[in-house]
Amino acid sequence: MIVKKTITLKGIFEFAGHHVYWLTAYMFIISVLYKVVGWQWISIPWLPVSLIGTAVAFYLGFKNNQSYDRVWEARKIWGGIVNSSRSWGMMVNSFILNNQLTDEEIRKIKTRLTYRHIAWLYILREQLLVSTQWEHVNLKHLFGKIAVQRRERFGIGQFKNYLNEKQKANYYADAAEWDNAANKATQIINLQSQDLAQLHEEETLHMRRQIELQKILSDFYDHQGKAERIKKFPIPRQYANMSFIFTCIFIFLLPLGIVAEFAKLEEAGVWLMIPFGTIVGWIYVVMELIGDYSENPFEGLGTDIPMLSICRTIEIDLLQMLGETELPQPIQPVNDILM
Amino acid sequence: MIVKKTITLKGIFEFAGHHVYWLTAYMFIISVLYKVVGWQWISIPWLPVSLIGTAVAFYLGFKNNQSYDRVWEARKIWGGIVNSSRSWGMMVNSFILNNQLTDEEIRKIKTRLTYRHIAWLYILREQLLVSTQWEHVNLKHLFGKIAVQRRERFGIGQFKNYLNEKQKANYYADAAEWDNAANKATQIINLQSQDLAQLHEEETLHMRRQIELQKILSDFYDHQGKAERIKKFPIPRQYANMSFIFTCIFIFLLPLGIVAEFAKLEEAGVWLMIPFGTIVGWIYVVMELIGDYSENPFEGLGTDIPMLSICRTIEIDLLQMLGETELPQPIQPVNDILM
Amino acid sequence: MIVKKTITLKGIFEFAGHHVYWLTAYMFIISVLYKVVGWQWISIPWLPVSLIGTAVAFYLGFKNNQSYDRVWEARKIWGGIVNSSRSWGMMVNSFILNNQLTDEEIRKIKTRLTYRHIAWLYILREQLLVSTQWEHVNLKHLFGKIAVQRRERFGIGQFKNYLNEKQKANYYADAAEWDNAANKATQIINLQSQDLAQLHEEETLHMRRQIELQKILSDFYDHQGKAERIKKFPIPRQYANMSFIFTCIFIFLLPLGIVAEFAKLEEAGVWLMIPFGTIVGWIYVVMELIGDYSENPFEGLGTDIPMLSICRTIEIDLLQMLGETELPQPIQPVNDILM
Amino acid sequence: MIVKKTITLKGIFEFAGHHVYWLTAYMFIISVLYKVVGWQWISIPWLPVSLIGTAVAFYLGFKNNQSYDRVWEARKIWGGIVNSSRSWGMMVNSFILNNQLTDEEIRKIKTRLTYRHIAWLYILREQLLVSTQWEHVNLKHLFGKIAVQRRERFGIGQFKNYLNEKQKANYYADAAEWDNAANKATQIINLQSQDLAQLHEEETLHMRRQIELQKILSDFYDHQGKAERIKKFPIPRQYANMSFIFTCIFIFLLPLGIVAEFAKLEEAGVWLMIPFGTIVGWIYVVMELIGDYSENPFEGLGTDIPMLSICRTIEIDLLQMLGETELPQPIQPVNDILM
Amino acid sequence: MIVKKTITLKGIFEFAGHHVYWLTAYMFIISVLYKVVGWQWISIPWLPVSLIGTAVAFYLGFKNNQSYDRVWEARKIWGGIVNSSRSWGMMVNSFILNNQLTDEEIRKIKTRLTYRHIAWLYILREQLLVSTQWEHVNLKHLFGKIAVQRRERFGIGQFKNYLNEKQKANYYADAAEWDNAANKATQIINLQSQDLAQLHEEETLHMRRQIELQKILSDFYDHQGKAERIKKFPIPRQYANMSFIFTCIFIFLLPLGIVAEFAKLEEAGVWLMIPFGTIVGWIYVVMELIGDYSENPFEGLGTDIPMLSICRTIEIDLLQMLGETELPQPIQPVNDILM
Repeated sequence: MIVKKTITLKGIFEFAGHHVYWLTAYMFIISVLYKVVGWQWISIPWLPVSLIGTAVAFYLGFKNNQSYDRVWEARKIWGGIVNSSRSWGMMVNSFILNNQLTDEEIRKIKTRLTYRHIAWLYILREQLLVSTQWEHVNLKHLFGKIAVQRRERFGIGQFKNYLNEKQKANYYADAAEWDNAANKATQIINLQSQDLAQLHEEETLHMRRQIELQKILSDFYDHQGKAERIKKFPIPRQYANMSFIFTCIFIFLLPLGIVAEFAKLEEAGVWLMIPFGTIVGWIYVVMELIGDYSENPFEGLGTDIPMLSICRTIEIDLLQMLGETELPQPIQPVNDILM
Repeated sequence: MIVKKTITLKGIFEFAGHHVYWLTAYMFIISVLYKVVGWQWISIPWLPVSLIGTAVAFYLGFKNNQSYDRVWEARKIWGGIVNSSRSWGMMVNSFILNNQLTDEEIRKIKTRLTYRHIAWLYILREQLLVSTQWEHVNLKHLFGKIAVQRRERFGIGQFKNYLNEKQKANYYADAAEWDNAANKATQIINLQSQDLAQLHEEETLHMRRQIELQKILSDFYDHQGKAERIKKFPIPRQYANMSFIFTCIFIFLLPLGIVAEFAKLEEAGVWLMIPFGTIVGWIYVVMELIGDYSENPFEGLGTDIPMLSICRTIEIDLLQMLGETELPQPIQPVNDILM
Repeated sequence: MIVKKTITLKGIFEFAGHHVYWLTAYMFIISVLYKVVGWQWISIPWLPVSLIGTAVAFYLGFKNNQSYDRVWEARKIWGGIVNSSRSWGMMVNSFILNNQLTDEEIRKIKTRLTYRHIAWLYILREQLLVSTQWEHVNLKHLFGKIAVQRRERFGIGQFKNYLNEKQKANYYADAAEWDNAANKATQIINLQSQDLAQLHEEETLHMRRQIELQKILSDFYDHQGKAERIKKFPIPRQYANMSFIFTCIFIFLLPLGIVAEFAKLEEAGVWLMIPFGTIVGWIYVVMELIGDYSENPFEGLGTDIPMLSICRTIEIDLLQMLGETELPQPIQPVNDILM
Repeated sequence: MIVKKTITLKGIFEFAGHHVYWLTAYMFIISVLYKVVGWQWISIPWLPVSLIGTAVAFYLGFKNNQSYDRVWEARKIWGGIVNSSRSWGMMVNSFILNNQLTDEEIRKIKTRLTYRHIAWLYILREQLLVSTQWEHVNLKHLFGKIAVQRRERFGIGQFKNYLNEKQKANYYADAAEWDNAANKATQIINLQSQDLAQLHEEETLHMRRQIELQKILSDFYDHQGKAERIKKFPIPRQYANMSFIFTCIFIFLLPLGIVAEFAKLEEAGVWLMIPFGTIVGWIYVVMELIGDYSENPFEGLGTDIPMLSICRTIEIDLLQMLGETELPQPIQPVNDILM
Repeated sequence: MIVKKTITLKGIFEFAGHHVYWLTAYMFIISVLYKVVGWQWISIPWLPVSLIGTAVAFYLGFKNNQSYDRVWEARKIWGGIVNSSRSWGMMVNSFILNNQLTDEEIRKIKTRLTYRHIAWLYILREQLLVSTQWEHVNLKHLFGKIAVQRRERFGIGQFKNYLNEKQKANYYADAAEWDNAANKATQIINLQSQDLAQLHEEETLHMRRQIELQKILSDFYDHQGKAERIKKFPIPRQYANMSFIFTCIFIFLLPLGIVAEFAKLEEAGVWLMIPFGTIVGWIYVVMELIGDYSENPFEGLGTDIPMLSICRTIEIDLLQMLGETELPQPIQPVNDILM
């Protein structure tokens, strides 16, 4: 998540500046062909190009909209995790009760159920960050390398070692039980459920209350499943790709459609097409890029949902509910990026 | 589901390349009529054509949007099935309890309830793949044949024999009880419900817990019913068809509207209309096709929701909850298609 | 519901063909006035007409969208009825239990609760088909007559006598109790509720289970109320009408705006306006018609939600849950229409 | 709610006819200035005006969409009130039970709970009709007066005295307890809740059932709160106003942009601008008006949600559930308006 | 929240008037360059500019839409807080019950639970008003200063001292227990939960009822978490910024695109471009501003959600449920702003 209201010119250049090069080059070539080489027949009427431009702008708008919805839904899911986690902490605190047990024993049970939940949070985050085939870092050639570099420099690379040894020891205490699972997060929740059943057996948890806690565990499965859905199901490629292809076609047609209009102007006209055609093309490219980079909100890039920061917020709240006073620090943005 | 970020040129050609032929032919005919035969009266003013082009682009955008929503809702439903299935597994694991029974007996009950659920998953998938009257494979003439071929080569045809004999024996153990049902999946859930009632009678399941499990069974009916709704109710044909007809009308008008504009250009102008008119028309055709192929997400084609892969993921998770270690392999994409 | 993927030319002509006549006539009149009578002053500039055309296309898109949402919501509601009905069947099957009663007595109770529910389905459907003031069949003059005819020939008229005498006798056994109600469906559900209360009194239904069944009855009220909302509340007329009026205004302006453009063409130009102007106008008329005919999904026309077919599907599923083997046939499409 | 499918020309004229006057006057003035006075410099190029026209049409579409959503949500809320009210009636009927009490006593309790609910309905409606600062009736000068008149002649003014003395006596029996409340509806529900608690104390209502009824009371708070939200929170004025201002700017620019185009036509051209410019401007004005009048669905005008009619429908259903036979009449439309 | 239907011209000027200055200056410079300096080559063809104008209008519409959705969701969340708070008050009133305790003791418990809830409301509001990095008040230079000033003069600055000493003493009685929390609101709810557990221990609250109240506490966490989500997650900056940049680019291109068109007009033409170009540019600027100022609905500015007024409404309702008669006054708008 970018936390600055306005992106600097430098930021824009880093994000999409390099596309200016090839756009300029292409505009230049067409200008030369038209004016110097004299291939005036390459000019085509503007009007159909304009129609395509409108249709493509619709299509890009549609894709941007869907990407935005994915980002927003991803954030909602993590917001839901916050809410359910607080409810979990609150109910564990109020429902575990047994007059046969000492305060210390009760406290240990509450801590176990809370710590294991924090483990679930961090593990779920890690699972969601494993890259899929269609993410930028798995692109071929230079594209993939740049994406890996970006992830290191403006993404998760800036937020390593987020748990110290003590935290790991606390939260991952029973890692042995879920470490070999195909889906660790799923089995952690299952473990919680078996723990509750055990507590009921031991008469530390009334069945009515067990069922309420069980419902929250189901909610966690819901949240997890929704996040995995966004992770594992990209915008259907037939939609997402065509937007890219349409943009390419439009930019290919663009100078052919405007070169004659510019040529009608004063002497310098055709050369003016180079900057202005580049600007128009660049706007379309950037629209396409925005959708493309917002599509996968768990990629590890700077446009991600700030999962780490959310996990930490929950961690602090839950520890305070347990009455702990030695709290970790909230995650702070680095280079205006919060992960 | 296509799992590659970018479709290759070959992929695009396979998907929509053949439409270039007739578009080119049509553009060529109009050019010849205009230039060679000299029927200059066939030219019409561009402006109303442009208006139609904009209106049709809106309409196509609307249809694409609805198709996208159907795909996305279908994926959400199967995501819901994942979540409820995990809850089912978790609760079966924690709620079945009887001090009178041996561990082995308890384990058998849990296994029965879980295996029967896995049966429901695969049966539901199969039911959803039975083709309806409005799907591509049921089109007349060549269109239907091509669709059948595509289904074999880029769709479910690549993912046969997904259950080995042992799996079938396990999951379909009580197939006799639902095999003759009009809707097998419905009766499997009903069987689960009767099993729960029986377990309550035998005091292996407390009524409060029975009711919770019963609610999850209702959730399965919800998921199933929602998936069936998408399957059995296409985009109302008055909407979907008109988009096709409007596209045809627009493409019919297109060269008539631009031929004069191109003719105003240099000598070669009219002939230039052939490639450029084809490009413009092709963009509209592809927009129409994207909507058309995403409309039915349970067709068995490569653009489907990856139901098989989801079923397998659930199967693995549930088996691990039972503590089984002999797990089936996750479904892998074949030719960049995951079903 | 139309079940054919593509509408034939004949189908299109039946749906909207007659509008071609007056459009052609109007285009012809303007052509004659302009060319023959020589009223060249009736021509107006194209550009403002084009702007109106775009604005009206937006507005029509908006209306089509809302109509689509109504159809889709209507289908979702009936999908919800399917799901809740199956849950009802399943729970009635599992929850009715009394060791004091014979199997036959238990079976009778289950059958009574299930049959009465089937009555609710068919009664609700009938109530939803009673026409409202703003539906096509209540239009004045010829318009209403055509609509009545369509309803008979391509709508509910094709699906009479859907229940045989035995079915009626079974399902409507206690009709006397709700036949005089202002809203029969509402009172049937109320009767179910009183039956449940009675079963609880007789200790055949545990209170916890009664409450679960009661919740499903509330769900039925929800579904019924939602369907009635769509039925009783049309698209606000200020919206729906204006779309019609704007379309009329646009079509009125259309030939005035393009006649001069066509006249600029070769000799035949003005006469070419007749077919092409008709096509442009027709596209707008059809867009308006699609929204207009999809607005009310319980009208009894061929574009309706297939309520009868859904009722029958539920009926079969519920009868199979009761173990009955003498099942009615699913509803089949007639003339590619499923009701 | 307007119940006629098509608005007559008279209806349109009453709704928006008066705007034709000033539009015509403005168009006339520009024509005179251009043609008679000879201020040809007031003409500006059409193309930027057209761009503004498109942008403003988008913006109006956005506002219309939001207004529509408000109407539709308002109707959904009242639909929800219908559903929850029926559930209330049904459950009161089935859950109140005490073998110590006579049938008559039980019946009295049921009647009390039902009547008090009907009071809530009518009181909530009245509260929602109290006008807010931003509604039409509170506009300054003539605008407000016209709105008040419209409310009397085509709105709630036509539906006075909807409850007879007996109804009032029945439903408002314990009005003394909530008459001084800041929010009467809120306190009526609170009273119901205390009544339920009392019934539980008296062992006439089992706690499980009390909790179910309590949930429905919470649902009523939800419905009430949602309706109040729409009432008390208009479309943010920064959005709603700007749409008005943009429309004004566009209409101001419109004749300046088209006057030269019309002047290019035959002699009469400039004068033709008067009717055609008026039509174009009027379409924009009407689009703005539709959004403006649909924004507040509880204003007491003819475009309102038909709350009274809905209240009466519920009243009849609930009385029939109590077995009463002396039922009030449903509300009928007056002058094609249903309130 | 602005409570006036129409903004005065003065209001508009205060909101966006200053942008007229630089727009005029820029239009003036281009006019001078073109006409006086004679740089006619700076003119570019209008048509691509128009295409960009349409695409940017789409994009702005998209952003405005998202901002509107955020405002509306924020209002819905606070509406949800109203509803759940009333349910809380109602249930506390009905569920706290112990024949061992005196009326006064019971009353004290109810008051404690209600007062603490009111504390949660005001604390949550305060937490939501703490400014984030991307809000206007944290902008650099003059922009931030103006925003701070606006907040004081037209925002929360007008609504200080909203609680008198007695209210503070009542509601913040146990502030010591949550004053050091990282998230005070979270810990207040946790305290409520522990209080309920204690009441259950003391047999003043039946477990079934405790669980119902616990669910409402979970609802409060939901509402709080949703509000925090909107607060802590802005519109992704890649979207929000690009809209700003595209608007700048369009306005930069605008006079270059229209200067030649205006120059074609009479002598004065180029100078006419200054006012008209300014108007066109201003409309785009205002569209951008509306989205920009509605994006963050908890900023403390006049376009905020009226949280204070909502808190007070709840406060009054809850106090009346407790039977208190000394009630605070509702919050009234100041300068047509309600906070």
